[in-house]
Amino acid sequence: MNTAGNNLAENRTVPDTTPAELDAALAAASRAAGPLAALRPAERAALLRAAADALDAAAGELVPIAIAESSLPEARLTGEVARSSGQLRLFADALEEGSYLEVIIDTADQDAAPVPRPDLRRMLVPLGPVLVFAASNFPFAFSVPGGDTASALAAGAPVVLKAHPGHPELSERTGRVLVDALRAAGAPEGTFAVVHGMDAGTSALTDPRIKAAAFTGSVRGGRALLDIATSRPEPIPFYGELGSLNPVFVTPAAVAARGETIADGYVSSFTLGTGQFCTKPGLLFLPEGHGLEERLVGAVRGTAPAGMLSDRIRAGHAEERERLEGLGPVRTLVHGADAAPGVAPTLLATTAKELLADPDPLLQECFGPTSIVVEYSGPEELLAAAEAFGGNLTATVHAEGADAPTLPPLLDLLRERTGRLVYNGWPTGVAVAWAMHHGGPYPATTASVHTSVGTTAVRRFLRPICYQNTPQALLPDALRDGNALGLPRRINGVVTRDAL
Amino acid sequence: MNTAGNNLAENRTVPDTTPAELDAALAAASRAAGPLAALRPAERAALLRAAADALDAAAGELVPIAIAESSLPEARLTGEVARSSGQLRLFADALEEGSYLEVIIDTADQDAAPVPRPDLRRMLVPLGPVLVFAASNFPFAFSVPGGDTASALAAGAPVVLKAHPGHPELSERTGRVLVDALRAAGAPEGTFAVVHGMDAGTSALTDPRIKAAAFTGSVRGGRALLDIATSRPEPIPFYGELGSLNPVFVTPAAVAARGETIADGYVSSFTLGTGQFCTKPGLLFLPEGHGLEERLVGAVRGTAPAGMLSDRIRAGHAEERERLEGLGPVRTLVHGADAAPGVAPTLLATTAKELLADPDPLLQECFGPTSIVVEYSGPEELLAAAEAFGGNLTATVHAEGADAPTLPPLLDLLRERTGRLVYNGWPTGVAVAWAMHHGGPYPATTASVHTSVGTTAVRRFLRPICYQNTPQALLPDALRDGNALGLPRRINGVVTRDAL
Repeated sequence: MNTAGNNLAENRTVPDTTPAELDAALAAASRAAGPLAALRPAERAALLRAAADALDAAAGELVPIAIAESSLPEARLTGEVARSSGQLRLFADALEEGSYLEVIIDTADQDAAPVPRPDLRRMLVPLGPVLVFAASNFPFAFSVPGGDTASALAAGAPVVLKAHPGHPELSERTGRVLVDALRAAGAPEGTFAVVHGMDAGTSALTDPRIKAAAFTGSVRGGRALLDIATSRPEPIPFYGELGSLNPVFVTPAAVAARGETIADGYVSSFTLGTGQFCTKPGLLFLPEGHGLEERLVGAVRGTAPAGMLSDRIRAGHAEERERLEGLGPVRTLVHGADAAPGVAPTLLATTAKELLADPDPLLQECFGPTSIVVEYSGPEELLAAAEAFGGNLTATVHAEGADAPTLPPLLDLLRERTGRLVYNGWPTGVAVAWAMHHGGPYPATTASVHTSVGTTAVRRFLRPICYQNTPQALLPDALRDGNALGLPRRINGVVTRDAL
Repeated sequence: MNTAGNNLAENRTVPDTTPAELDAALAAASRAAGPLAALRPAERAALLRAAADALDAAAGELVPIAIAESSLPEARLTGEVARSSGQLRLFADALEEGSYLEVIIDTADQDAAPVPRPDLRRMLVPLGPVLVFAASNFPFAFSVPGGDTASALAAGAPVVLKAHPGHPELSERTGRVLVDALRAAGAPEGTFAVVHGMDAGTSALTDPRIKAAAFTGSVRGGRALLDIATSRPEPIPFYGELGSLNPVFVTPAAVAARGETIADGYVSSFTLGTGQFCTKPGLLFLPEGHGLEERLVGAVRGTAPAGMLSDRIRAGHAEERERLEGLGPVRTLVHGADAAPGVAPTLLATTAKELLADPDPLLQECFGPTSIVVEYSGPEELLAAAEAFGGNLTATVHAEGADAPTLPPLLDLLRERTGRLVYNGWPTGVAVAWAMHHGGPYPATTASVHTSVGTTAVRRFLRPICYQNTPQALLPDALRDGNALGLPRRINGVVTRDAL
């Protein structure tokens, strides 16, 4: 998502964290790392469930603060609390299931070629304290109690969370709920802390006690932080989710079969949450002669104006919308008015021919309720347009059986450029599930080999360790013969939950 | 390992790759990426086995070239060919086993809270063409047919391999063996290529067609390449294995039980391959009054001088040895003479007290047959010394049951600083196995979350993709209900090889 930077103060109800306070938080996180890592998976699962329960119990207190700070509606924010607590519980399930530890045991083999093999036992261990930069657009689910926090804690990594300035009071209160719940459940002191202010964030990012960072925000802000993380004396992994256009491609057969439903679904998707989703569809490719313009315009005009997350984000959207409207090849179908605090959606139009002639000005994310309809002349132009895209979180195809021959090459092109392929659906709404992947080639995410949503997100904060010929008493429980934790383990190449 | 840079010409029997030749190799790799990725795992396994067979068949031709270019002995190089072909076959086994694809399927759930869940099917796909920088010290196993090549090809990623200038003719010939074998087995043209020259390497590293890089070499060279990879407009993963001291800690009880065996084993390990292993033990911690000095000195004096990989590496070793010998707190127990082409081993001594007073000058890797014995006064000093280390590939402990109470804190400290913990053994000799981990906190490797040896090394060159609500006919085989490939798949949270 593109929030046009998050380096300026917005709602200044919470003072910035001082250097001394930050140092104390980092020192506490560093002290907590060992004890937190030493907990059994089921013990950490209990901590996550305690945090989830406390979050649910505090929803009545927190949601009104979130409404005031984010301008998002109550139903959406209540759902977001449920999503966040559900996410904590899903990670607790994953901990108890145990495969996230990736235990692999090869017993000694004197006959191995070309040399005898010692007893080798590998598992994953936490990296150490993680710095999480919260996002503006999900005050719960990608913020204090969000996916980065949940997956880092699940991994056994203490979290120092840099609050987003768009919802400081909510961040502070939610942080207290989590800290209290974790403490009451027996987590080591320092397991979780919230800090405020960009100085605290960048200072923590260069601190040697921080071993990884996660971020959701703009390309510009994320890239600056990535560069800091990778240029440290000891570079650390920086898992940033930066920007995505989320194009949607509609075939002629899909238009024929259900064009009006597609038009309505598209408008719902790009205006959802006032267009402030990482997965908002930024471009809709329709075949020439689709006949849906009136329907699209009607649906956009029928969408009520709604508040945006902050004045800065509203101003950033207006600026980017104006830039797009000013481009030669762009027609304005609906110009949404800005009547503070509401912003009405804007619908633009262009052609694939124009886009292919000069892609860059059109292929910029506009964070907010503005999207572009792009007409294409036929399958070749559609494939060429798909090929013009860089990395994206999602790409969506609407098609019918009749299109079959054209679809495999389109999906192949899109797969190279995206992390999630949506078929006859919409990219907004990222289910929290074992199979979810939220990531993609740069700039969708800085590291396309990892996800920021779904149970496998925990892998970002773990690293392998291998014990060679180590006596049972000195091995972690996970690697001992008896398998007291009941883990799935690959033993001499075969996965089993049996003891060795 | 620290090879003191690899940016100068050494054995100039093969001309540098021209920019036009490099462009052709990158273009071919880019064209091969799709077809190579589209092969079924068993088809790629057949390619790896064909490459392994061809490598074994060519050993008689290749080993003499390797001897001439590396000064390593025949038995070692013959063993290295077997290790490399065995490694290719192990990755073929891993492909056929199928879990490397990490298939996860969540079927649609209308009742999921807080929102219905669509059908989600996740698997891993290759990143695209990989650039591999070969190492000097393993002309086969970490070079043209080495672990990075094997794991990238296994992942389905074409490889452009930048040859090490220490063995250019061997690299060229081995490359031809692999290219011919892969072509004969039906691999797409462009699946593998060898290029020569540092300009070609750095130019390829900045080319947008390269999607990841792997490197084994010096901290200085590796860091420079890491910085190039991460500062590209589209940053790419850079998997570098840079430097490691591989400390060995011996308890009093171990000295009492088998001190002389430990002394002999240590000297064998640090002089193996003329000390030119990434895992060479650089420091041996012995308790005061260990009484092994005479034995150690005798073993070192009894080790025959041997050639080093190149004149540059020999000069780099001599310079670093001289620096260490010149340090105030260092005593020279044995000064090994340089009588070209042989280099005799050097044994130095200091105390943990001196090391703790000023660690940095002593904690620098000396690539070659030089190592330092460090006397410690007791358990507290031993723990403090362990804590003084940064990231390492390995740490080794020699102990007996009697030491039990002191060992858990020592192992905990070492686990934070290393990728592999060796107990009552030696770090040299990295078994190629499912459970092996070769990596560690920086600077052991640039990304401690990944390994460069063992079957899980394939994960470095893969990224997740998720298909949402996609019809069977448009899904990859791996994700279709029928599970025709017989893969292990996590379906709604439970791993099974059954069809859906």
